[in-house]
Amino acid sequence: MSTAQLELTHITQAAARASAIAAATPDARRAEWLLAVADILDANSAELVALADEETHLGEARLAGEVARTSGQLRLFARVITEGSYLEAIIDHANPAAVPPTPDLRRVLRPLGPVAVFSASNFPFAFSVAGGDTASALAVGCAVVVKAHSGHPRLSERTAELVAEALRGAGAPEGLFSLVSGRDAGTALVQDPAIKAVGFTGSIPGGRALFDLAVSRPDPIPFYGELGSLNPVVLTQAAIEARGAELASGLAGSFTLGAGQFCTKPGLVFLPEGTDFAALLAAASREKPAGAMLTDRIAEAYPEGLRGHATVPGVDVVVGSVDQRALAEGAAPVVFRTSAATVFEHPDRLLEECFGPTTVLIEYQDREELHRVLALVPGSLTATVDAEPGEDIQAVAEQLAGLAGRVLFGGWPTGVAVNWAQHHGGPWPATTSLFTSVGATAARRFQRPVAYQDAPEALLPEALREENPLRIPRRVDGVLSLP
Amino acid sequence: MSTAQLELTHITQAAARASAIAAATPDARRAEWLLAVADILDANSAELVALADEETHLGEARLAGEVARTSGQLRLFARVITEGSYLEAIIDHANPAAVPPTPDLRRVLRPLGPVAVFSASNFPFAFSVAGGDTASALAVGCAVVVKAHSGHPRLSERTAELVAEALRGAGAPEGLFSLVSGRDAGTALVQDPAIKAVGFTGSIPGGRALFDLAVSRPDPIPFYGELGSLNPVVLTQAAIEARGAELASGLAGSFTLGAGQFCTKPGLVFLPEGTDFAALLAAASREKPAGAMLTDRIAEAYPEGLRGHATVPGVDVVVGSVDQRALAEGAAPVVFRTSAATVFEHPDRLLEECFGPTTVLIEYQDREELHRVLALVPGSLTATVDAEPGEDIQAVAEQLAGLAGRVLFGGWPTGVAVNWAQHHGGPWPATTSLFTSVGATAARRFQRPVAYQDAPEALLPEALREENPLRIPRRVDGVLSLP
Repeated sequence: MSTAQLELTHITQAAARASAIAAATPDARRAEWLLAVADILDANSAELVALADEETHLGEARLAGEVARTSGQLRLFARVITEGSYLEAIIDHANPAAVPPTPDLRRVLRPLGPVAVFSASNFPFAFSVAGGDTASALAVGCAVVVKAHSGHPRLSERTAELVAEALRGAGAPEGLFSLVSGRDAGTALVQDPAIKAVGFTGSIPGGRALFDLAVSRPDPIPFYGELGSLNPVVLTQAAIEARGAELASGLAGSFTLGAGQFCTKPGLVFLPEGTDFAALLAAASREKPAGAMLTDRIAEAYPEGLRGHATVPGVDVVVGSVDQRALAEGAAPVVFRTSAATVFEHPDRLLEECFGPTTVLIEYQDREELHRVLALVPGSLTATVDAEPGEDIQAVAEQLAGLAGRVLFGGWPTGVAVNWAQHHGGPWPATTSLFTSVGATAARRFQRPVAYQDAPEALLPEALREENPLRIPRRVDGVLSLP
Repeated sequence: MSTAQLELTHITQAAARASAIAAATPDARRAEWLLAVADILDANSAELVALADEETHLGEARLAGEVARTSGQLRLFARVITEGSYLEAIIDHANPAAVPPTPDLRRVLRPLGPVAVFSASNFPFAFSVAGGDTASALAVGCAVVVKAHSGHPRLSERTAELVAEALRGAGAPEGLFSLVSGRDAGTALVQDPAIKAVGFTGSIPGGRALFDLAVSRPDPIPFYGELGSLNPVVLTQAAIEARGAELASGLAGSFTLGAGQFCTKPGLVFLPEGTDFAALLAAASREKPAGAMLTDRIAEAYPEGLRGHATVPGVDVVVGSVDQRALAEGAAPVVFRTSAATVFEHPDRLLEECFGPTTVLIEYQDREELHRVLALVPGSLTATVDAEPGEDIQAVAEQLAGLAGRVLFGGWPTGVAVNWAQHHGGPWPATTSLFTSVGATAARRFQRPVAYQDAPEALLPEALREENPLRIPRRVDGVLSLP
């Protein structure tokens, strides 16, 4: 083994030992660990934001909001594990009268073991070192080994120091949380026998490569990847007629937010042909300043992606310029306009994600053509339809629910609330999974069920003991009951 | 496309259309479909059992019980979808006071789409054409395409006819259920773009090959495979002293049940050295008749597997003979005895599943050695510890919970109750999944979440409408509430 390999093994072995301790720790204690991490992030927000702004150029206001979101996520998971439904406790008492007789059987979810978390470039807090994957894994009692993103190395180090300090102070076991860096460490981590699941947020090629590693292990492990998303938006004729300028202003704000580097950026906008919406959007977008890109690689890929769209016959540029020579000053907004007919001819080129402040207006002739072109859109995190009250959009809504994990009725997809009902996921390539990476149910990714048959009361996990000492919701003999 | 490919595409396209209809069908109607299938199986039990006995030699009593189990499974899923918790409905009302304000968000689980089901040789009803995978997929509104097992082709055809007849009679859509045969059809099915998930019960090599196909698709799909399991049993000194003959009799019954062709067969039995348990087991096993094997391939693999164990130095044969020349009369019970020390030297050969009426007694010197040898046992569906009241077995139980999906405290693993709390799954290679293939929660395998943001009431699925018209349990603003 090389020194790097030895070091990684040391880290993952420590994570395995810490996971065993965390799994045996009461929920109330683990909730305290999460709250300690939340508190230390808030207390050091100013320092972290300054560091993040130097490395990501995302701006202080946005970054301060993201720290609050991140500590809020940790506090949500503290509530989730305290409430206890996340354990999915089910008790079926023995039934000697059944044919054949059935034993006493009690099921609960238990932590999987050490989780590898790959942090994202575009959310240096909320989807990074102490982000949602880390929070949900720690919550259920899994150790976490984070692979730092190369786009914000100093911030990653500093955040990791603070997380480790908070966990130590709260009495969490040594090795429960660690940070590794570098591409080689990342690939080794996914293949490490001690690692039992992976959380990933990033690009389709990067995510697919790691997914392939995870599933080709001698013992395949779950890979929860959030990879890429076009986030289609459908505007109706009536909506544009009633609120055209307002929609244009909202769309301009959404597709340029964070210089268009959001996984929920609206990348495709379907609208009826023959409206003045493009002109309204041009007016609204011109006010938007150029924004610095997160990394050199993303900055270089942006004009390439733009050229990929612009060189398709039948595609017009209605806002900005594909020639982004002034990129040193940041990426400027670019809007394309084309027809559904052109998408039918060049689906691969026009239905490809372009990370940055750009979107494609696609004009449809009628509802029938709209349905046909939506059928080509790959799986997305979100899909939006904006219509006037009373319009019949049931068929559109149904189609959007088939291609995305979150369907919006008006509004813009770039806000992702962190709560119990959130689903941030969707069919491939939006994610590799049937789970969310944001919100309370993200916890289920890092748990596995165990059923205890005819167990003595003293050997049952507390969640399954007869008198319900944790006072959690449980299903008993088929009936869901509240404490 | 070849004719066979065209035919398969025809079937999967019909399944996709039927899935869309089933997804939009009320739970109460789909429950009727399940009950109709259950009723037709029960009504034709005698004919089906006779056909199954000809093809599998499993015996009429066992097969009649299995039909009842299968119709019981269908009825359980009818109750599950009627109760409604399986939809995991969550509502978070808008909160304009939050920073930033949060929208109205409502999450529900929706069916994935057409599911491919690979039936098993060893349970021609309960894990076959109308078995648990089919029942749970139909329950949530997914069409099913079953790949018949080559071990019981006529039974598969006849069962499929009856299922189709029942579904037609109950008003289910055309194409909701179909049957295909042959290895080529099976591999094509896993790669078919219309198929959205796979349920599989079978061998490790066969399951791994199909798993690899499922995850290497351009759009990877979930593969829920139940592959192989050693089902370790730990007996303590005190248990053997107190109940040695009873334990021997129970074990003999369990490892020879169905000629040892159960995925939950106890294949490894850990016991303290220096007891007379082997002699007691020999006495109890000698009474067990030879049993016909399910297929020629399984019959040929059995003596090969036995030789694989017998030729390890330090392994004794304490019951039966490795030389199974009289296999025409069926497979006879064989018991091996060895030491934990021998397992440390030859883990690969002794910790390999041997399908058939055989088990391996492994003698441990002390608890410390027991823990070390258990650490080598691969993931299993079940693990059992049998001790006397008052013995300290907490560490053993905890270790077993780490390696299996169901932990038994006494009794034998070969009975698998079908109820709400059951978990029939476990770490690789027991399964490829964090889900069960038996019991109520199996339904979650074929569902994906969708969140509706700011949706007009009329466009929400009924499960999410404000007044809870389905009267199902839901979580509202973080609080789980019963109807």
